[in-house]
Amino acid sequence: MNIKKIVLPETELPRQWYNILPELPTPMEPPLHPVTGKPLCPDDLLPIFPMSLIEQEMTQDTYVDIPDEVLEKYLIWRPTPLYRARGLEAWLDTPARIYYKNEGVSPAGSHKPNTAVPQAYYNKISGTKRLYTETGAGQWGSALSFSCALFGLECNVFMVRVSYDHKPYRRIMMETWGGTCVASPSNKTNAGRSILEKEPDSPGSLGIAISEAVESAVADEHNKYSLGSVLNHVMLHQTVNGLECQKQMALAGDYPDVIIGCAGGGSNLAGNCLPFVRDKINGKDIDIIAVEPAACPTLTKGPFAYDFGDAVKMTPLLPMHTLGHSFVPKPLHAGGLRYHGMAPIISQLIVSGLIRSVSVHQLETFKAGIVFARTEGFISAPETNHAIAVLIQEAMKAKQEGKEKVILMNWSGHGLVDMAAYEAYLAGELSDYAIDDEEIKDSLAELDDLPKPRQYRA
Amino acid sequence: MNIKKIVLPETELPRQWYNILPELPTPMEPPLHPVTGKPLCPDDLLPIFPMSLIEQEMTQDTYVDIPDEVLEKYLIWRPTPLYRARGLEAWLDTPARIYYKNEGVSPAGSHKPNTAVPQAYYNKISGTKRLYTETGAGQWGSALSFSCALFGLECNVFMVRVSYDHKPYRRIMMETWGGTCVASPSNKTNAGRSILEKEPDSPGSLGIAISEAVESAVADEHNKYSLGSVLNHVMLHQTVNGLECQKQMALAGDYPDVIIGCAGGGSNLAGNCLPFVRDKINGKDIDIIAVEPAACPTLTKGPFAYDFGDAVKMTPLLPMHTLGHSFVPKPLHAGGLRYHGMAPIISQLIVSGLIRSVSVHQLETFKAGIVFARTEGFISAPETNHAIAVLIQEAMKAKQEGKEKVILMNWSGHGLVDMAAYEAYLAGELSDYAIDDEEIKDSLAELDDLPKPRQYRA
Repeated sequence: MNIKKIVLPETELPRQWYNILPELPTPMEPPLHPVTGKPLCPDDLLPIFPMSLIEQEMTQDTYVDIPDEVLEKYLIWRPTPLYRARGLEAWLDTPARIYYKNEGVSPAGSHKPNTAVPQAYYNKISGTKRLYTETGAGQWGSALSFSCALFGLECNVFMVRVSYDHKPYRRIMMETWGGTCVASPSNKTNAGRSILEKEPDSPGSLGIAISEAVESAVADEHNKYSLGSVLNHVMLHQTVNGLECQKQMALAGDYPDVIIGCAGGGSNLAGNCLPFVRDKINGKDIDIIAVEPAACPTLTKGPFAYDFGDAVKMTPLLPMHTLGHSFVPKPLHAGGLRYHGMAPIISQLIVSGLIRSVSVHQLETFKAGIVFARTEGFISAPETNHAIAVLIQEAMKAKQEGKEKVILMNWSGHGLVDMAAYEAYLAGELSDYAIDDEEIKDSLAELDDLPKPRQYRA
Repeated sequence: MNIKKIVLPETELPRQWYNILPELPTPMEPPLHPVTGKPLCPDDLLPIFPMSLIEQEMTQDTYVDIPDEVLEKYLIWRPTPLYRARGLEAWLDTPARIYYKNEGVSPAGSHKPNTAVPQAYYNKISGTKRLYTETGAGQWGSALSFSCALFGLECNVFMVRVSYDHKPYRRIMMETWGGTCVASPSNKTNAGRSILEKEPDSPGSLGIAISEAVESAVADEHNKYSLGSVLNHVMLHQTVNGLECQKQMALAGDYPDVIIGCAGGGSNLAGNCLPFVRDKINGKDIDIIAVEPAACPTLTKGPFAYDFGDAVKMTPLLPMHTLGHSFVPKPLHAGGLRYHGMAPIISQLIVSGLIRSVSVHQLETFKAGIVFARTEGFISAPETNHAIAVLIQEAMKAKQEGKEKVILMNWSGHGLVDMAAYEAYLAGELSDYAIDDEEIKDSLAELDDLPKPRQYRA
C-alpha cells in the first residue's frame, strides 16, 4: 500500500516562524507614511496594531519564537497533512510526482488561521478589546472570528459586498463564532459612505473594505485593526506551513522542482514557499509560480511601485505590484484574489527573479477544480482552483517532456462554502473575463503622483 | 505543551473491519421477506445488492478483510484524528476528560464515506454501472457521489424534499463529484408519484426516498441500490472508526467510561462504539448512549418490532426499534436523524441493555453546537450537535459528582454546509418540537399486522 499523505506528529509542530527579510538578496524598500511620504516609524502604526506585531513587521531576526499559547491553538488543526496526488497523477497519466499541502483542515477551512490565531493572541495580551478587519471571499473574516472566539475578543468584519451577497454561509460562520459581519461599502464609516454616494451599487473591493476597517479601528484606543495578508508579519506567521512542508517532503524522500500557489494578497503562497525560497537563494533550482486571475492580474500586468493598500489612501504606501488603489475588480468567485496590490515580500521576490507569475481564466480554474474533486476527492476553494489549473498545466508539460518532475502545490482551502460558484460553473453560467490594458489605465495613472521605489518596474 | 489530538500514522490504518454479529449475547433475529414473511435468503437481495455485500450482511466471521483498493481510498482521509476537548473542558470547568473522534475530515465532511467507499468498490468489481440511493440531510448522498467518482460509477440520489430545499450546497457537492440529485418524493418513480398524489407538498422522508431508490435500482440489471445506514454491512464498514479509536485511546492512556453518538439510522454511533461494545460484553463498564431528536424518538418511544425500512413496504422486514414505516417526521435541521427505524444491530444492543438512549430538543442541540464552535473551533453538523448536547450534560454531571470521568464522543461531521440552520438558530427562528404519543399512534398501529420478533418490546 502506497503512502497517500505524510502526517507529522504534534511534537514536530514548528516552534518558530521563519523571517525571510534578513536573507533577501535585495533588501526591501521601506513603507512610507501616507501623508509625509517619509519612511514609516513603528509609532506610526500604533493606532492600528499592537507593538508586538509592529516589531514582527520590521524584525531582522531570521527566526521568531511562536508563543506557547499560539502553539496550543495551532494544534487544533496543525501540523496539516501533505498529500501525494496519486489520483490526479493517474488521471493525467503524468510522470510528475505531485504533492499538495492541505491547509483546508482548519476549522475555518483555509490557511488563514495561521496568522489569525497569533494576531488575536498578541492583541489579547496587549489589551485590545475589539478587532476590526475586512474580508473578500470570507476566508479571512471567518478565520479571525474563529481565532477571536478562542481568545475572547470581539471581532468585527467588513465583507466585500459582492462576496457578502454570494456567500451568506461565510457570514453565518463568523456569527456562529460570535463575530459580526457587515457588507462593504457600508454606511458605518466615512470611507464607506463616500463610496456609496458615488456608486450606490458598488460591488465593493478589498481596498474599500480595508479603509472601513482601519477607520473603525482608529476610532477607539481599545480597537485595533487586523490584516489577513500583504504585510510582513502575516507572511511570517504563515511560514509555519512551509516549515512543516519541508519536513514532510524530506520524509517523502522528494524535493520540489516546481512550487505553485494562488496569490491574492500573497499569504498562502508565501507561507508555503518562503522556506523554499531560502533554499533557492542558497542555490537550489526551484521554479516558484504565483497564480492570479486574469480578471485581477496584479503581478502580470501591474507595475512594481509605491501604492496605498486601501482605496481611500489611509494606509502606508507599500512597495509592491499594484493595479492602482482605485482599481475595483469585476465580481469573481475567487473573492480572495480580488485585490489591487500584492504583499511587498512577494513583489520583491518577483522583482528579484525568485518567483514568477502567471494568470489564468476563471473557466479553466473551475474545470481544474472539478478534475481535482473527482480524482483527489476534495472540493477546492475557487482561489485554490487557480493553483490547480497551473498544477495541471505543469504536470502535462512534464508529461510532454517525459520528465519525473516533483511538483508541490499549496492547497489553500476547501470550497464547501463556495458551492454556489460550482453551481454556476456546472450550469454554464460563469463568465470568463480578462482585464485589458485600457481598463487599468486610469487607476495606474494615479501612481504617477506617488513616490517611486528605487527598483521601480513599469 | 499538552497533546491536543492523537493522530495515527497511515501504517496503523486497520486492515480488517470488526463484525459484532457472532459475539452478540443474544443473536439477531433474521430479516423477513416483505411478501412471504419468511426469513430472507441471500438470493432475495441480489436484485439490489452485489453478492459480496450480501455475504457481509450475513457473515458470522468476527473480522472481515478490507480490500487494498478500499484501504487506498480510505487513506484520503483516514486514520482520522482523536481530539482531546481541552477548550470545552476548560469552559465547562469539568473534571471529565473529554475526547472526540473527528470524522469530519473526509472530503464529504462526515463518517459516511467509511461505507460509501467499500460499497462503491464492491459494486464496481461486480459489474454495477449505476448506483441509486436516498439521502436525508445530504451527508450520505454526497459521500456516495464522492465514492462513485473515485471508482467511475454513475451515482443517482433521491434527496428528502425538505433537506433538498434547505441544503442546496449538498446537492451541488453531489453534482461536483458527477452525481445527480433529485428531490423526493419525485415523479420519477411509482413510489414517488403515489405519495405526491396524496400529498403534493410532502416534505418527504427517508422511508419514501428509500422506496424511490430501490424501485429505480431493480429496474435494470446494471443498476444497484446502496444504503448509507441501518444494515449490518454498513455497521461493519463503519467499525474502521472504532478500531482506530481504540488504538488512539490507548495512546492517550485513557479508556472511556462514557461513549456518546447521535443516532439516525445508527451507523456513526455503531462505527465508533461497536469495538467498545465487545469490551463491554467481555466485562468492561461503559455507559454507551445513543442520542436522538425528540422530534423523531425512534429508540425512546418506538417499540422493538418487525417493520419495513421504507414507506411503501418494498424492503425486507427488519427487527428494530421503529415509529412505524408510515411515520413522517416534521422538518428538522438534523435531516440525517429523520428516520422512522434504527439499525437492527443498535436496536438489538438496546434490547440487550448494552446501549441506552436519550432524546434531546433541537434548541438545546444548537446551543451546544455554538458552545463547541467557540471552545473547540469546529462547527458541527446539526446531527452531531445532538451528541454534543448530551456530552455537555454528562460532563456537567461529572462535575457535580466530582468524578474524573473519561467521555468519548463521535464527532460525526462538520456543519459548514448546514449554516442556514445556524442562521435560523441565531435569529431565534428555530422551533423546538417533541413528538407526543398521539402523533405516532397511527403509524405504530400498522405494526400490529406484521410478524413480531421473539424479543418484541412494546
